[in-house]
Amino acid sequence: MGFALLVSVGEHRRARAQVTTQDTSALLVVDMQNDFLAQGGYYAEKAARFCAAGEELSAADHVALARVYMHPPATCEISGRYQGFVHTVTGVAAAALNGGMTTIFVQAGYDPDARYRPPLFLRNPQRRDYACHPGTWGADLVEPIKQLASHPRARIVEKHTFDAFFETELRGLLRFKHIDTVYIAGVETNVCVLFTACSALSNGFNTIILAECVTTSQIDVHEQTLRIIEMAQGRLMSTRDFLTLLER
Amino acid sequence: MGFALLVSVGEHRRARAQVTTQDTSALLVVDMQNDFLAQGGYYAEKAARFCAAGEELSAADHVALARVYMHPPATCEISGRYQGFVHTVTGVAAAALNGGMTTIFVQAGYDPDARYRPPLFLRNPQRRDYACHPGTWGADLVEPIKQLASHPRARIVEKHTFDAFFETELRGLLRFKHIDTVYIAGVETNVCVLFTACSALSNGFNTIILAECVTTSQIDVHEQTLRIIEMAQGRLMSTRDFLTLLER
Amino acid sequence: MGFALLVSVGEHRRARAQVTTQDTSALLVVDMQNDFLAQGGYYAEKAARFCAAGEELSAADHVALARVYMHPPATCEISGRYQGFVHTVTGVAAAALNGGMTTIFVQAGYDPDARYRPPLFLRNPQRRDYACHPGTWGADLVEPIKQLASHPRARIVEKHTFDAFFETELRGLLRFKHIDTVYIAGVETNVCVLFTACSALSNGFNTIILAECVTTSQIDVHEQTLRIIEMAQGRLMSTRDFLTLLER
Amino acid sequence: MGFALLVSVGEHRRARAQVTTQDTSALLVVDMQNDFLAQGGYYAEKAARFCAAGEELSAADHVALARVYMHPPATCEISGRYQGFVHTVTGVAAAALNGGMTTIFVQAGYDPDARYRPPLFLRNPQRRDYACHPGTWGADLVEPIKQLASHPRARIVEKHTFDAFFETELRGLLRFKHIDTVYIAGVETNVCVLFTACSALSNGFNTIILAECVTTSQIDVHEQTLRIIEMAQGRLMSTRDFLTLLER
Repeated sequence: MGFALLVSVGEHRRARAQVTTQDTSALLVVDMQNDFLAQGGYYAEKAARFCAAGEELSAADHVALARVYMHPPATCEISGRYQGFVHTVTGVAAAALNGGMTTIFVQAGYDPDARYRPPLFLRNPQRRDYACHPGTWGADLVEPIKQLASHPRARIVEKHTFDAFFETELRGLLRFKHIDTVYIAGVETNVCVLFTACSALSNGFNTIILAECVTTSQIDVHEQTLRIIEMAQGRLMSTRDFLTLLER
Repeated sequence: MGFALLVSVGEHRRARAQVTTQDTSALLVVDMQNDFLAQGGYYAEKAARFCAAGEELSAADHVALARVYMHPPATCEISGRYQGFVHTVTGVAAAALNGGMTTIFVQAGYDPDARYRPPLFLRNPQRRDYACHPGTWGADLVEPIKQLASHPRARIVEKHTFDAFFETELRGLLRFKHIDTVYIAGVETNVCVLFTACSALSNGFNTIILAECVTTSQIDVHEQTLRIIEMAQGRLMSTRDFLTLLER
Repeated sequence: MGFALLVSVGEHRRARAQVTTQDTSALLVVDMQNDFLAQGGYYAEKAARFCAAGEELSAADHVALARVYMHPPATCEISGRYQGFVHTVTGVAAAALNGGMTTIFVQAGYDPDARYRPPLFLRNPQRRDYACHPGTWGADLVEPIKQLASHPRARIVEKHTFDAFFETELRGLLRFKHIDTVYIAGVETNVCVLFTACSALSNGFNTIILAECVTTSQIDVHEQTLRIIEMAQGRLMSTRDFLTLLER
Repeated sequence: MGFALLVSVGEHRRARAQVTTQDTSALLVVDMQNDFLAQGGYYAEKAARFCAAGEELSAADHVALARVYMHPPATCEISGRYQGFVHTVTGVAAAALNGGMTTIFVQAGYDPDARYRPPLFLRNPQRRDYACHPGTWGADLVEPIKQLASHPRARIVEKHTFDAFFETELRGLLRFKHIDTVYIAGVETNVCVLFTACSALSNGFNTIILAECVTTSQIDVHEQTLRIIEMAQGRLMSTRDFLTLLER
């Protein structure tokens, strides 16, 4: 019949005896999306309105924030405060992919009409102004990260709550590949990073936060969140140590 | 800033008051893969060897069946006995997609080295000759189905066991979209269709098997499996009735 | 401080090196409840009304069947057709407990007002006449089984659907104890036994149906259900073989 | 046949129209166990050895801590620092039970030999010195709480990790009863209370921490943990407000 290539099962897969750290580890890159990190995204818009308003947002502000951009702006720039951060995370994710590590880009999709929703809607179920409406530009991965997502070792996992494991394929995906260790990068330290780390720990994964690769807009609880994760037996690793580990 | 299009949340989504059957239903198309349905696939090869061998497969047969094709043959033909079946399922899936119904193509990925494996490996964990090794031609969707999978309303869900809900994103995906009814097509009636239907029922989904769109190589239990699903409160619907329902 | 007994962790638990079949196996005894098996239970009452009515049940019949008994009758007898069956299952469960095997009595609790409900309510969500309302005599384990449930190696797991694994502690309980094999007894073969067996298989448990210890009121699909479970890599074992295995 | 009492389904259950806060809420009382709170428990013993040792525990200390008490001491006293706390939580739980609220006592069972284990074992899988070995006195609920656990509205849920929802019946139990709000009390704020709160939020429960009813031995992160839970849309309520709410 003319099949192009015939291989045995054993050949098309690395023998399990030669398992490396890369084989049993995955990098989770959490919520690197325009709404969190880019100019014109939800968070940047909200911050600008807060500055302008002084204190409380008006009803008109909430209506404006509930508007979503279906298509990207001509130039899509990372917000000033996040430029170094996005650069660092992009470098680390590229190194992981090139170093042979499964890398999973977790992408929040928060639909105000969905049955599963992040806890953000608990107090006000009618709320419409929030980030990451599925299908919008704001929910897109930021440009430099998006370019990595087509790598053969990359996977995108869409999540609907703060926890990347909740009602997603993430656990099956990791277990299927015999992965026992997850490294976590992304935003925000005290919300989606924390919730995802807790679930990773409950599921028995060695859970390591990459110190310079997580951040939050609520910077006053950043350090304490990392301490709390460590107390619960998560670990903290510097970006430099992670890159060194990949080179082994 | 020059965003290309600005819409409100309310506009980019059909108002919930106008919900139709299509909005709250999904079609699950199970395991329409080369290894099950195409010439040169695992099942066709195994059947051919059974015919040749008379009764038991030899060790050499098992070794040969454990070989997997990484690339498709020049011509990839559906096995004779499945040509009408594939044609019917393809037509139904196309009608569902064009009629506005979420359609999910479930794709088995059975890796002999994975931690999650179908029950097939329970009795012989070292078994190597089985269908749908991830990344092989045999695990690919059959050509006419594969062409539908790029439709914007289509989704591919990879499963690792007989049950499309087990450790996958399927439940989250359906609940996220307020779907309460699933129609099931595909193979094999008494294995992956049955397991998936049981899980759909446990999760509280109205579960409807499309009668002419499911089949099995173990044809003597086909009818009984459908009766058992009906006794457990699943339902059976003719392809014709399903197509009529889509036109409403 | 006067503690009564001081032992090391190693002492109060059998060394893992001496693991026996009993240590890594559990017996699941499914739905051995009055409503299914006793005189005056839902099924017996329904059958009696069917006989009297000839064909269809009247509205009055449905109302009567929706009445539930809070307290047991003076004499609680097993229905004639199930007396031998209950005797057999009771003997097997007693042997398992005495032989050192974890034995789990699964008890259906089907509350018409609950959010999780068995698929029975899918077609008629208002339905009130059904078995095993929590807290009623009908939902109680039949007397001889109930007496075994207080054994130190026995556990009761309440289930809300046909599947003993769905939203219950069963998986955690089995995994926690390193159990990899489940033996299944109880009713009904083609409903709760089948659904529970499918979930056990998906979760990777060796799944063995005890042939004389499962039955169903829909006896015409009993044999076919067992064949279907076997085709999906479940196994069938005679009661005699199971008892022999316990004696080893 | 002489059944003692015959009621209709409608009668033996409060009409859903008269649903009160108590009907749709549950109180979760987390890990109120001797090993955490009583003299002679793991934590008290460990603290005493830390004080004696100055800094690092010796190998002999670890061996001693790995010893577990199968039976209670003659007098089982709450550690001095926890006496007021246990008194408060006991009062709140009694008020909840008497006020008609489902109250669930979560009990950690951490077996060093189990397949599911708390993250505590991640760094040192061979570790033997830890709290709450199933079946020991240390794993028992502290006396005043234990007395409440036999109340008809009380339930005990055994958990194997830090998260009361992970592989337990808790979610099914709450959803089965149409509960949408959970109040959380117990120990330790930054570990099991936090993990359980995160899971409750992911599952869409309104999640309220009872301020004076949670505490931790790592008191320096107590306040920050509460802030982090609030930022993730959990809420904080004073014990007094909770008691007032129960009286309504």
